[in-house]
Amino acid sequence: MIIILKHGASDDEVETVSQKLRDHGYQPNVTRGVEDTIIAAIGSPSLSEKEMVAPQLQALEAVERVLFVSKPYKLVSRESHPADSVLDIQGVKVGGQQICVMAGPCSVENREQVMTTAQAVRESGAQILRGGAYKPRTSPYDFQGLGLEGLEILAAARKATGMPVITEVMTPSLVEQVCEYADVLQIGARNMQNYDLLKEVGRCRTPAMLKRGLSSTIEEWLKAAEYILAGGNSNVMFCERGIRTFEPSTRFTLDLSAVPAIKKASHLPIIVDPSQGTGRRDMVIAMSKAAIACGADGLLIEVHPHPEDAMSDGQQTLDIAQFNTLMHDLKPIAAAVGRSL
Amino acid sequence: MIIILKHGASDDEVETVSQKLRDHGYQPNVTRGVEDTIIAAIGSPSLSEKEMVAPQLQALEAVERVLFVSKPYKLVSRESHPADSVLDIQGVKVGGQQICVMAGPCSVENREQVMTTAQAVRESGAQILRGGAYKPRTSPYDFQGLGLEGLEILAAARKATGMPVITEVMTPSLVEQVCEYADVLQIGARNMQNYDLLKEVGRCRTPAMLKRGLSSTIEEWLKAAEYILAGGNSNVMFCERGIRTFEPSTRFTLDLSAVPAIKKASHLPIIVDPSQGTGRRDMVIAMSKAAIACGADGLLIEVHPHPEDAMSDGQQTLDIAQFNTLMHDLKPIAAAVGRSL
Amino acid sequence: MIIILKHGASDDEVETVSQKLRDHGYQPNVTRGVEDTIIAAIGSPSLSEKEMVAPQLQALEAVERVLFVSKPYKLVSRESHPADSVLDIQGVKVGGQQICVMAGPCSVENREQVMTTAQAVRESGAQILRGGAYKPRTSPYDFQGLGLEGLEILAAARKATGMPVITEVMTPSLVEQVCEYADVLQIGARNMQNYDLLKEVGRCRTPAMLKRGLSSTIEEWLKAAEYILAGGNSNVMFCERGIRTFEPSTRFTLDLSAVPAIKKASHLPIIVDPSQGTGRRDMVIAMSKAAIACGADGLLIEVHPHPEDAMSDGQQTLDIAQFNTLMHDLKPIAAAVGRSL
Amino acid sequence: MIIILKHGASDDEVETVSQKLRDHGYQPNVTRGVEDTIIAAIGSPSLSEKEMVAPQLQALEAVERVLFVSKPYKLVSRESHPADSVLDIQGVKVGGQQICVMAGPCSVENREQVMTTAQAVRESGAQILRGGAYKPRTSPYDFQGLGLEGLEILAAARKATGMPVITEVMTPSLVEQVCEYADVLQIGARNMQNYDLLKEVGRCRTPAMLKRGLSSTIEEWLKAAEYILAGGNSNVMFCERGIRTFEPSTRFTLDLSAVPAIKKASHLPIIVDPSQGTGRRDMVIAMSKAAIACGADGLLIEVHPHPEDAMSDGQQTLDIAQFNTLMHDLKPIAAAVGRSL
Repeated sequence: MIIILKHGASDDEVETVSQKLRDHGYQPNVTRGVEDTIIAAIGSPSLSEKEMVAPQLQALEAVERVLFVSKPYKLVSRESHPADSVLDIQGVKVGGQQICVMAGPCSVENREQVMTTAQAVRESGAQILRGGAYKPRTSPYDFQGLGLEGLEILAAARKATGMPVITEVMTPSLVEQVCEYADVLQIGARNMQNYDLLKEVGRCRTPAMLKRGLSSTIEEWLKAAEYILAGGNSNVMFCERGIRTFEPSTRFTLDLSAVPAIKKASHLPIIVDPSQGTGRRDMVIAMSKAAIACGADGLLIEVHPHPEDAMSDGQQTLDIAQFNTLMHDLKPIAAAVGRSL
Repeated sequence: MIIILKHGASDDEVETVSQKLRDHGYQPNVTRGVEDTIIAAIGSPSLSEKEMVAPQLQALEAVERVLFVSKPYKLVSRESHPADSVLDIQGVKVGGQQICVMAGPCSVENREQVMTTAQAVRESGAQILRGGAYKPRTSPYDFQGLGLEGLEILAAARKATGMPVITEVMTPSLVEQVCEYADVLQIGARNMQNYDLLKEVGRCRTPAMLKRGLSSTIEEWLKAAEYILAGGNSNVMFCERGIRTFEPSTRFTLDLSAVPAIKKASHLPIIVDPSQGTGRRDMVIAMSKAAIACGADGLLIEVHPHPEDAMSDGQQTLDIAQFNTLMHDLKPIAAAVGRSL
Repeated sequence: MIIILKHGASDDEVETVSQKLRDHGYQPNVTRGVEDTIIAAIGSPSLSEKEMVAPQLQALEAVERVLFVSKPYKLVSRESHPADSVLDIQGVKVGGQQICVMAGPCSVENREQVMTTAQAVRESGAQILRGGAYKPRTSPYDFQGLGLEGLEILAAARKATGMPVITEVMTPSLVEQVCEYADVLQIGARNMQNYDLLKEVGRCRTPAMLKRGLSSTIEEWLKAAEYILAGGNSNVMFCERGIRTFEPSTRFTLDLSAVPAIKKASHLPIIVDPSQGTGRRDMVIAMSKAAIACGADGLLIEVHPHPEDAMSDGQQTLDIAQFNTLMHDLKPIAAAVGRSL
Repeated sequence: MIIILKHGASDDEVETVSQKLRDHGYQPNVTRGVEDTIIAAIGSPSLSEKEMVAPQLQALEAVERVLFVSKPYKLVSRESHPADSVLDIQGVKVGGQQICVMAGPCSVENREQVMTTAQAVRESGAQILRGGAYKPRTSPYDFQGLGLEGLEILAAARKATGMPVITEVMTPSLVEQVCEYADVLQIGARNMQNYDLLKEVGRCRTPAMLKRGLSSTIEEWLKAAEYILAGGNSNVMFCERGIRTFEPSTRFTLDLSAVPAIKKASHLPIIVDPSQGTGRRDMVIAMSKAAIACGADGLLIEVHPHPEDAMSDGQQTLDIAQFNTLMHDLKPIAAAVGRSL
């Protein structure tokens, strides 16, 4: 930790700050220049000590700014685990040489829609089936998903096709139920900092996909994943799905630089969701290629037999022919970065 | 709803769109110009129909854009209730002529801290005591709050001072417990779109304060409140607490234009939290004055007897003398806008 | 300057960084902990040295991050000039006890429009007349302003009413011309980092108003002002006019926390433009009150006799009666913060 | 244009709006529903009429919102020119089958640095040499570039290597001078809305690269390019270089979805600058691959023989070996999207 004092800090003030540091297990090392006074605080107090003491120091009049040096996360960091983690989802690998494509409808609507989609995307090369049974919707008057019935439809599709299933869980009390039906728990962007949900997912052993919050920094995202790993569940993958910016021509701004950023900071895999990330069907193929090119471990793609009849997100959903084209076009990109699809 | 077709849309395409509209209970009214074709779709299908059909139309090749005319919320809208709603919190009014100041520590740490703060802020004129027992923290290694013990301390302070208590509830399963101790349920920024939580709060009758999400638009915020009202709980107030922007000199950017925006769109009261909203103790007084001047119904202020020892958010917390100054300085501002404090 | 090295930096790497610092006139002070190595670099090289060496250090493999301690601006800083600067605009003071209101049309359209507006706003208490002769417009097909003819109309209104005039200058080659007609040069948001323009304005002695760039941080804004002061013109005032965020219900997000931020960092006055900052006529009065309440030294308000016929920005322009109401409503707010209007 | 009236608009108000539309050459077509009144205004007034009348309508009390249907730009639109435009820069094509890489130092520092870099990047396959002679710097104390001397060094490198040169022009009065030395004029992000500069560049015939403003929407960017084309210079390419967001781990957020967005809206080529766009050397290769994968026509890359001695932007600059690796790694990506490098 580095503490920068205000101009003209007195010797007494320097001592007050130093003492507070010593009280919390740090060894302060004071550097006084003509203009500025800097205190480098080394030592290894616990992470919780570090998190607490910084705002306290900031509350002292003499302190201009407090800066962290060491990273506020551990288990997710690449330093704690230098090799890439490869998750195993019922035999499907995520994070290894193979690119993993997860595809399916935004919402589970009925058995036929899911079966048709599942078979079609599997034939095109998708490995995991996605579909929403519980849906987070901005309006209470929107379709809220089929719930348990939706989970049962997904399980039937899994049985019929052999594809593992990813679906969203929105609240701690349903984690157990969703685990019975799903192979991957999706934590949505709006729940990235729903800490009770993260803790509950940390207690189970089902792999989880943690979507980035709409306005979450990379660091906050890593810390949110740390909640799950700290709970004992290390089967976590990230999913970049677009952030909020001022640009209105896309629904969100897909931040692909998150891919190399996460790859550098963490050993966990990262997936990209270009359907949500752009909100525009005409951009899904281009941004899928870009995602693979910059190192993403997989894609999450919305597919529906008839997007114009979809109960949610039709505007960003591919039909089956378009999905087939996507998979075809991605193969040479995957090869160009030394991976397969 | 207004549907703008792509340039050169054929008669067949216009008919396809029109038929889809008729299927969903709309009467389409087509305007074809030299350049553009516009379809105005009037009629009164249910809100859920409206929400569903727009993305479906957007999924049609011939459609350039779909625009909503009517507002996607009802019960929170000023049109549904032209007069200002005034909430009654154990006799304390929020939304009326009187400005309501809620003050107290970020986190409940121990009985003495809460008692000291409660008595001090009450003497300075605060009407509601705030304090966090369950704390949403970005890192799993941060202090997570005292939980139930914290609620009991708040209840003791309420008994001792007569002040109603506001505290955060983070997860649906704890709503019932928190209702036993709290007079106002706070829904934090990171939970603004935790829909299961909103629904649970909608089922109880305890007043709720809905903080704005870090990157939530005004419209999304109104829709989130609509979840609570649609559940049957109409005792809701909004709280502006800063949004995420690129500016690093404040922790968030306090968007005070949200105050007149909410006042125009809704009948519900709006509170401003300058402590969270700026993250800087030296700005709390200035921004509190601004909030009252532009029409806020109250303030939420972090106060601690010793901010430099606070277990969270010390850098943005006033000490007791500073809070007293704040209350003193606010009086003439309140008077200048025809209100009292 | 503080240099944080990567984990496991070798002694050789520490020496490479230290030597580079010594080469540039710094005295490095190394602190090595178990986890981290920190180098505090004190000494007083010139500001230009500082600006250059940081990215060079960052380019070294061993360096994790470089942090600045001292502020990258001098003449604008409050440290260089602890007392508030008060500008004198032909006898009108900006930055002192009196709040200064500048009002007038967005664009100068014709002599009658300007005269009518000028007389009306002066009667209501405005002290400076605003009006655009050269207009920055997002489209080349928009009305681009009357240019020199517009300046002559403004000068005529100044003669008739005695009000000093503020108008925008968009390009270095016109600074001299605009100085002949204007009492204050306005530098627009889109030109905040037009450095040739800033340098040219620095060479003249006409007071300048520097609007904040749409996505400029407070620090970048201070540095832009430093260009003008470094050129020799210290008659500068800032103007907060809204920043770009994700919120669509206002044209920009008026960042009123910029007012206390600038007041703390600099001795120069700060004005608020609620017309541009919100883009909504129905918010101008509320946000004007808030601006004065949090310490702004003045306001910039768009007024037109018939906003519905204005050639630009009618949606955010007050008519004369509304402006009169504004001035009336502001008086008690100004009094509440110990100022007059 | 579509005008949405407020709830309960009277017949008189509808007629007032309709009359205003007729006055400006529109034919209004009124649709009155139970809830809403919508006026579709067709006809073909000039673009300048359209731009002016919308804010006027918005200024009417009865009007809730005004929406544009047709695009506010013409010459840059793909509708006006369905085929891709291919620029010819002294024989180097931009926008065709071949990917064009422009590389060189951020700042021109001296003859040797430029010569060494130029020869090295040409050998690796770069086609155009970049280098800054006039530098926009946030602080007046930063290195401001060598100016004319820098242009002469670039011209010498062009002569020695045969590579065309791109360099920035910051102010209208220097356009003529820079045109004497440069083959492409770069308009920087901070000058994207420097309209006098755009007009001056529109008057010359040298090709121009228009960088996206830090907080410019795609539509504003297209309109800015329209200024240049409207002036008669149709040799324009766009350059995405990152936008301002809340994310601090990259200097800007590179918005690659701008590539398909521009490709859809316009016939002009688009280049990506991953050096500026991320501000991190360790991300340049990954984001370059992504840019080519999603359809960019070229790249702008900062290269320096010794980034740790560069006078600007060393932290995001590749050295010569890294640039060579980049070019090698890009070839299979280009091939995968049917292009060559």
